[in-house]
Amino acid sequence: MRTPDRVTITEVGPRDGLQNEGRAIPLAEKIALVDALSETGLTRIEAASFVSPKAIPQMANAAEVMAGIRRSPGITYIGLVPNEMGARNAIETSVDEVAVVVSASESHNRANVNRTIAESLEAIRDIASLCREATVPWSGYISTAFGCPYEAQVDVARVMQIAERLRDTGAEAIALGDTIGIANPRQVSEVVTLFFERLADTPLRLHFHDTRGMALANVIAAMEAGATQFDGSVGGLGGCPYAPGASGNVATEDLVAMLHAMGIETGVQLDALLDAAWLSEDIVGRPLDGRVKRALPRPASSHRATQVDYVP
Amino acid sequence: MRTPDRVTITEVGPRDGLQNEGRAIPLAEKIALVDALSETGLTRIEAASFVSPKAIPQMANAAEVMAGIRRSPGITYIGLVPNEMGARNAIETSVDEVAVVVSASESHNRANVNRTIAESLEAIRDIASLCREATVPWSGYISTAFGCPYEAQVDVARVMQIAERLRDTGAEAIALGDTIGIANPRQVSEVVTLFFERLADTPLRLHFHDTRGMALANVIAAMEAGATQFDGSVGGLGGCPYAPGASGNVATEDLVAMLHAMGIETGVQLDALLDAAWLSEDIVGRPLDGRVKRALPRPASSHRATQVDYVP
Repeated sequence: MRTPDRVTITEVGPRDGLQNEGRAIPLAEKIALVDALSETGLTRIEAASFVSPKAIPQMANAAEVMAGIRRSPGITYIGLVPNEMGARNAIETSVDEVAVVVSASESHNRANVNRTIAESLEAIRDIASLCREATVPWSGYISTAFGCPYEAQVDVARVMQIAERLRDTGAEAIALGDTIGIANPRQVSEVVTLFFERLADTPLRLHFHDTRGMALANVIAAMEAGATQFDGSVGGLGGCPYAPGASGNVATEDLVAMLHAMGIETGVQLDALLDAAWLSEDIVGRPLDGRVKRALPRPASSHRATQVDYVP
Repeated sequence: MRTPDRVTITEVGPRDGLQNEGRAIPLAEKIALVDALSETGLTRIEAASFVSPKAIPQMANAAEVMAGIRRSPGITYIGLVPNEMGARNAIETSVDEVAVVVSASESHNRANVNRTIAESLEAIRDIASLCREATVPWSGYISTAFGCPYEAQVDVARVMQIAERLRDTGAEAIALGDTIGIANPRQVSEVVTLFFERLADTPLRLHFHDTRGMALANVIAAMEAGATQFDGSVGGLGGCPYAPGASGNVATEDLVAMLHAMGIETGVQLDALLDAAWLSEDIVGRPLDGRVKRALPRPASSHRATQVDYVP
């Protein structure tokens, strides 16, 4: 079994996770979550999204989040930006890295940001210029890279074209997102293999949702095809806007537990990460899908959110 | 990615699944579940356990279950038996196959059946004699094959010795059980590879619990090492007696959905299996862990249990 010695994890719970909650999360709780994650050994945390609070109220206060967290020098704090304005705001708050998103399917891109893919790529060129001026690195998510809620099939050649375009525009890394959790291990194996054939020197991240329970199986397939970077969402925060009640991103602690059991280093302390997972459950006020957490009793010493609205 | 063209699934929900419920399930509901499973294209269903109802009240009425179900000629209905008495009862009800269990760890075997492993293997020899006389095939589960709740590590050499002993006693197949859901893909790859080196001609089944979310990842690793047979529990029925609240067996429909997405045949109709999964949720009266089910709306036409005690 071909696996890497070490895997780098990008924690996306504070962004992709909380974004999918039905209500806006109070600023103090967002900050508490990022601070808890900063104590786990994670080196990359997507901390905020600089979208319009009108569009996604859950993501309001991005600048306040960035200003309020205790930033640890070894950690890259990432801000997602949808446009030039977002990029300016993100750079002003001194994010360490900017993330941009474009869909691999026209209909999803249209539904998501009301733009064609070409228009999104244009906007990303402007964001890239701003980042270059500010010497802030940026990376590009390609969402619906393995399947789309509106289109039957996503063309893998199109995914590669978009990835090459992002690389040529200056992306430090590309993340392929399985937005609706429909990727299967065989497909992941093929797509990752193709990516490394086409973009050999570009770092690749895989962003798996666990909608159909395949996320960790997809991680195995991706590692066997050469991938060494994965996204996770603490506790399994998040969901799927296209399937109410479905699971969200793969739970970071489940990912870390599997990798450690396989002898693969992550640099993350699982017990500290579980603390943050319990905190994330407090914050959203409902049981989350992370499995490892449910297999263990919660220690009395774990973080607890001070102000929590429990949903019965 | 090395995968088989076809996988055979053994459905264990009516036995391993319901056995872990906190209450006895009414006979009519057990029968309804097996009957629903018989309509899915599954060819192997573990329908009942012939244990003492004093020991496991959830498994009472095994003979009545076997007598009450509509048996489909293409399906192997399996009865789990703990001892000679159970075997006699199972054979009397005309089960198509007998299953026996022995742990790979002494302390788990002791806790489970109050016997040493050697004593369990002796009892299995007697069961094997009965089966031979009645010309009923039997297979052997080795539980805690990947880890034990009481012992730090399970010796893989011991697992292989027990497997060889079961084969020599006449087992048609061996099932390696990850009773506490602690197996990881690297370990699975190694154990399955070793099994086929040592017992090349003995059919192998893998029985994964999803306690830590690794079950489908373990299926991938097992297939790549040559495995073609897996157990699943409809809906994700079941749990872990050592971790209250934890997930049970891998959900059969999640397993089938992944295999089909990968182009691997199972002979199972996923929509019919999902119907049975919703029925299983009705029967236990709580949301089950199967992911695919939660990603889809329940069709109005699905089976519904007529008498269901919903647990609030």
